[in-house]
Amino acid sequence: MTIEQAKKDLISLGAKLSAYNHANALIYFDGATTAPKGTAQNRAQTLSVLGEESYKLSTGEETVKLLEFLDSNKEQLSVEEQRIVYLMLKDIREMQKIPLEEYIEFQKLMVEADDVWHTAKENDDFALFEPVLEKVFNFHKKIANWCAPDKDPYDYWLDNYETGLSKARCDEFFATLRSRIVPLLKKISDKPQLDDSCIYGDFSIDKQSELSDYLMRLMKIDINHCGLQTTEHPFTISFGSHHDVRITTNYKKENFVSSLYSVVHEGGHALYDLNSKDEYAYTVLDGGVSMGIHESQSRFYENLIGRSREYIEYIFPKIKELFPHQMENYTADDLYKAVNKVQPSLIRIEADELTYCLHIMVRYELEKRIFAGELSVHDLPKEWNNLYKEYLGIDVPNDKQGVLQDSHWSGGNIGYFPSYALGSAYGAQFLKKMKETVDVEKCISEGNFEPINNWNKEHIWKYGSLFTPTELLENALGEKFDPSVFTDYLEEKFSKLYNL
Amino acid sequence: MTIEQAKKDLISLGAKLSAYNHANALIYFDGATTAPKGTAQNRAQTLSVLGEESYKLSTGEETVKLLEFLDSNKEQLSVEEQRIVYLMLKDIREMQKIPLEEYIEFQKLMVEADDVWHTAKENDDFALFEPVLEKVFNFHKKIANWCAPDKDPYDYWLDNYETGLSKARCDEFFATLRSRIVPLLKKISDKPQLDDSCIYGDFSIDKQSELSDYLMRLMKIDINHCGLQTTEHPFTISFGSHHDVRITTNYKKENFVSSLYSVVHEGGHALYDLNSKDEYAYTVLDGGVSMGIHESQSRFYENLIGRSREYIEYIFPKIKELFPHQMENYTADDLYKAVNKVQPSLIRIEADELTYCLHIMVRYELEKRIFAGELSVHDLPKEWNNLYKEYLGIDVPNDKQGVLQDSHWSGGNIGYFPSYALGSAYGAQFLKKMKETVDVEKCISEGNFEPINNWNKEHIWKYGSLFTPTELLENALGEKFDPSVFTDYLEEKFSKLYNL
Repeated sequence: MTIEQAKKDLISLGAKLSAYNHANALIYFDGATTAPKGTAQNRAQTLSVLGEESYKLSTGEETVKLLEFLDSNKEQLSVEEQRIVYLMLKDIREMQKIPLEEYIEFQKLMVEADDVWHTAKENDDFALFEPVLEKVFNFHKKIANWCAPDKDPYDYWLDNYETGLSKARCDEFFATLRSRIVPLLKKISDKPQLDDSCIYGDFSIDKQSELSDYLMRLMKIDINHCGLQTTEHPFTISFGSHHDVRITTNYKKENFVSSLYSVVHEGGHALYDLNSKDEYAYTVLDGGVSMGIHESQSRFYENLIGRSREYIEYIFPKIKELFPHQMENYTADDLYKAVNKVQPSLIRIEADELTYCLHIMVRYELEKRIFAGELSVHDLPKEWNNLYKEYLGIDVPNDKQGVLQDSHWSGGNIGYFPSYALGSAYGAQFLKKMKETVDVEKCISEGNFEPINNWNKEHIWKYGSLFTPTELLENALGEKFDPSVFTDYLEEKFSKLYNL
Repeated sequence: MTIEQAKKDLISLGAKLSAYNHANALIYFDGATTAPKGTAQNRAQTLSVLGEESYKLSTGEETVKLLEFLDSNKEQLSVEEQRIVYLMLKDIREMQKIPLEEYIEFQKLMVEADDVWHTAKENDDFALFEPVLEKVFNFHKKIANWCAPDKDPYDYWLDNYETGLSKARCDEFFATLRSRIVPLLKKISDKPQLDDSCIYGDFSIDKQSELSDYLMRLMKIDINHCGLQTTEHPFTISFGSHHDVRITTNYKKENFVSSLYSVVHEGGHALYDLNSKDEYAYTVLDGGVSMGIHESQSRFYENLIGRSREYIEYIFPKIKELFPHQMENYTADDLYKAVNKVQPSLIRIEADELTYCLHIMVRYELEKRIFAGELSVHDLPKEWNNLYKEYLGIDVPNDKQGVLQDSHWSGGNIGYFPSYALGSAYGAQFLKKMKETVDVEKCISEGNFEPINNWNKEHIWKYGSLFTPTELLENALGEKFDPSVFTDYLEEKFSKLYNL
């Protein structure tokens, strides 16, 4: 094998794997958006076949030989090629530890889990979900044990979404957040509450859909390569490369802000995915490096930008135009206060910026205990409700609005939740750094997202998965991660809002 | 190899090929329904990779060995297995004649063609479409020459959609139709025209969408396994098996009947696909046997049922409920006349039942001449317009409503059009036979589709591709195909409608 031929083979391997990823992602997307209810089994059948084919391709003898050859000739590879080979070999070495029939079984289980979760949530029926969720957790433990037998299984999954993350780091991070957020929350609860009545009413889906379109354009999302559809639980997905990205939202007739922030949140993910360097397409470098960094971008647009006074002032005329009757008696200031009202609540994705992290802590705590064998899946709802009472001080009336609310567990994303909180904290630090060279407030006031997007593109997006999350972060910031930037930001913002 | 193992391998091969079909069909469907505009290239890339993989799988040494082994042990196979082996080997022997790189090239071309056609139609710009359409025709000629070098290339494609069909048969069939339809049309044009004003107005898409839902339920389409979406040009597609079928429609605000008949037409296709025997799933027996038989079912529901007086009387109250204001001054009889108004027009899919076949003849004539080298793609629009003048007596104002109207050529379905006319004629003969044992009018009057569907299921649907179209037809009818049943039906129906 010559090095030149091997490099060509690497490109062709990337194209093949991307094609399978495209097919898999699209089948998942179809299931989550428009597929008829009774078709999950049919998708499971296809996914198990394609899963087997792509497993064989990505862990096959020829592939391993190719990658090892390239790995042993590192000095002749570009930095990008080196990283591709490293990431693919790392993946293969893990995949090889999972027996093929188990891998196929896992794929099928996840299709089933997604299907059952939808029904269970619809019918507020945790008992229906319980057996399959138990299987999902057990499978995650098994996979962790196969892939990293010397590692704590939950640490394995945390690290899987955010290289370098562990229970120890999470415990410390969340302790820092809690030590600042809980007292702040206490002070707020002693103050008169903000009025958020302007976000409730009767908002036609058609008009909300127009608003989504406006928001995507405002954020300068390339709508020629990014579509929007509706689904139960909003998400972002790419089909084979960053040339085709889709986001989803969920419209609520009675509250237009819910979908608004879904669109802006998923739009942040989409911007990150869409803006990988073009030459990374159809390689493992394409798209975001980790869930933490990904969430830093989505929550950057959702909160740091999207809940800023300047942003609300900029978009308010459009909202007034779309909902003239509903907004008749309200001002931009009313909306600004409404979207920043702090109030412990049931649903994570609708939580305010301050209490949001508490929702994450509940999930983190539960996952951790299940992995440690200290909590059974059967007792999850009870413990969920206990922790909501303890952390947020509220009673959970049913499982639909409780333990069944998120799609992550049925989607196989166990260990994912902490990256949301981490992302929020990364985002605040990125913003602080960005402000050294970009007049962010002014840009937002003028609806001019180009300088903001450019900063993110130059420091984050374009690199795809070239660097580890930590490298990327420290390159962009010129300093280490510091969660107190986030807590400082929260303190400043909410002190003003509530006159503390 | 034991025969038992070989049978198992055949099942597993079927499952694999179905998975690739699922992925390919879904990627196509995505492109036609919800994909952002700029993503065609990304889909082309994936389809070319998956096409190569499934090509290798379906024509690979192992597959050929397996099928030849089974073929040489026919006596130990069930009738179904024999047919599967026969169909797969036939396909392979054709596929093997197409060079792999050409096959991949063809897949890419078809994605491009679909994309360019959409833009060209939107902008009424045939010049944009011309070069790619020329490539499409040339590729079809090349494929025909590879696969059947001794056969006339257009005959090859006609036979491809309807086993046994040829130019000679088409010429004869169309001559029969023309000899009855043209004089009938002449007589009608001398009579007072029917009033169809009730189908025009302003009909909200939401209400039309409710109507679609109602129509699908009325037809007893299993909506747990059949979804509906919107697209430029309505079609029906299955994902991997008959357990997941999708139909599409296209709503026009100004005319609710356009989508109504799309839904009923595609619904007929869907019923056929959905009702293959369960054990045929993930084999080549799953789904309809030919385009002609397929169209016999779609046009059966669209015209023979859907434009009958009993059907209109049954659905009219629902239409009145959905569009009370628009329908205020109209009766079921008005609607019956409106949907059966005979008037030569521009758009095939909106043509009345009588002139429809003339639209097909135009397309057949053009395809035939291009294949014979008597007409260039460049001259297609001019000749299209000439034939519309000659056959239908109308002037075509632009290519958007002329040569660019259909998706068939850009979709790679050359030689497909005649099957629509053939299907109409098959359908009329099926109806005549059905009436021997089912009181069809009564069933429709009562909105009771079960006996009708059951007849179709027992005689047509459940067999999937087990029989050839001719076998299936003759088994169901107990006699040979006779197009005069169709022309008799037309004459009787329209004589009454127009008091001839």
